[in-house]
Amino acid sequence: MTTGRFISLEGGEGAGKSTQLRALARTLRERGLDVLETREPGGSDGAEAIRTLLLTGGADRWSPRAEALLFAAARADHIEKTIRPALARGAWVLSDRFLDSSRAYQGQGELSDSDIVALHRIGSADFLPDRTLVLTLPDAVAADRARARDGDHVDRIGGRDSRFHHAVADAFARFAAQESERVRAIDASGTTEAVTQRLVDALADLLP
Amino acid sequence: MTTGRFISLEGGEGAGKSTQLRALARTLRERGLDVLETREPGGSDGAEAIRTLLLTGGADRWSPRAEALLFAAARADHIEKTIRPALARGAWVLSDRFLDSSRAYQGQGELSDSDIVALHRIGSADFLPDRTLVLTLPDAVAADRARARDGDHVDRIGGRDSRFHHAVADAFARFAAQESERVRAIDASGTTEAVTQRLVDALADLLP
Ligand SMILES: Nc1ncnc2c1ncn2[C@@H]1O[C@H](COP(=O)(O)OP(=O)(O)OP(=O)(O)O)[C@@H](O)[C@H]1O
Ligand SMILES: Nc1ncnc2c1ncn2[C@@H]1O[C@H](COP(=O)(O)OP(=O)(O)OP(=O)(O)O)[C@@H](O)[C@H]1O
Ligand SMILES: [Mg+2]
Ligand SMILES: [Mg+2]
Repeated sequence: MTTGRFISLEGGEGAGKSTQLRALARTLRERGLDVLETREPGGSDGAEAIRTLLLTGGADRWSPRAEALLFAAARADHIEKTIRPALARGAWVLSDRFLDSSRAYQGQGELSDSDIVALHRIGSADFLPDRTLVLTLPDAVAADRARARDGDHVDRIGGRDSRFHHAVADAFARFAAQESERVRAIDASGTTEAVTQRLVDALADLLP
Repeated sequence: MTTGRFISLEGGEGAGKSTQLRALARTLRERGLDVLETREPGGSDGAEAIRTLLLTGGADRWSPRAEALLFAAARADHIEKTIRPALARGAWVLSDRFLDSSRAYQGQGELSDSDIVALHRIGSADFLPDRTLVLTLPDAVAADRARARDGDHVDRIGGRDSRFHHAVADAFARFAAQESERVRAIDASGTTEAVTQRLVDALADLLP
């Protein structure tokens, strides 16, 4: 049995997380690994129910504090019901967003980064990815990709201003600087294939 | 305008919280106060949606950690959307259960009391009742009252063993001892009228 590994893909809207998650899963399966693709918020029955609460309703449905608690609750369920069992059977688990998205999105305003980290400690006993790959793209390219995909449709969280999205990008860069063993910033420009190769390279030390 | 006050009623299942909440509300209204009756989990649109998640499904639908986060999220919404606005207009807000129920029910096992208190600090900036009235009843009397009301129907949280319910009662007694200004243990035996009079007496210093 191979050693199970937990990898999160992070980055702003339109950076290519979902595209790369599928491509990376295919590449790892070609190498004979058992791969589970998952996403946040969601990834387990309970967490998907919480996701529905989080992504529907007006922009002021939830205060930043209530929102942070709901994300942490969804994550606790996702880890317990989906991620840990898959790791236990030796799978590689790839998650489209994870804790660092909460830190980058909810840990900006009223709540501090240490508050978000405390919620994760209480909810999930500090469970962390073996590696976090942050897809990094110039704003204009990211916005073009998202617009090509979604048109003008945005959900409660996508529909925020560019100052907010800058702060998110800065936060991800900070995590990569501060936790350089776990978190790696990956250049997400160029073709899908080129980006996937960069991701595989950034996992080289973990691959069997 | 009178000063708004926030009062929580606490105690184990069948202690008479819901009965006394209605009776106390009537008594305070007869004194000319604007009274809002509310309950937890719930008391606002968002919190009622979370309540539905919490009270449905099997006993293992949520881990203790996910459950504690969901209660804290519901409470943050309840405070922001219902309790604070009512206090701001000078109402007396009476809540059937509040933070101390989370401390007594969720703060027993995997989670410590300080974890539950930390969730409340992060979610609701340490917002506390002006007074908490803990209805205290011998187990046998409480069980009889609950059975007379519910028959054998129990929900996810009511359906636990007697050792658990003892630990809950001990926790409430501890809060009353440790925070004696805010939390008062009230003898809940005797007639409804007698108990209501004890509650009013325990609010004497707050009444206009
Ligand atoms: N390397 C690439 N070159 C050009 N377009 C790309 C590339 N990778 C992804 N795209 C396109 O960019 C858009 C956004 O990609 P994707 O949905 O994977 O991003 P995302 O990070 O998952 O976004 P979101 O945060 O909104 O879920 C899609 O239309 C996708 O097809
Ligand atoms: N003083 C009393 N004497 C006798 N029976 C009572 C008294 N107060 C309440 N009861 C009855 O006991 C039962 C439980 O009361 P109530 O529903 O108010 O308790 P509760 O604390 O709200 O319970 P739960 O935690 O299950 O919601 C009800 O059938 C109620 O009518
Ligand atoms: Mg995506
Ligand atoms: Mg009741």
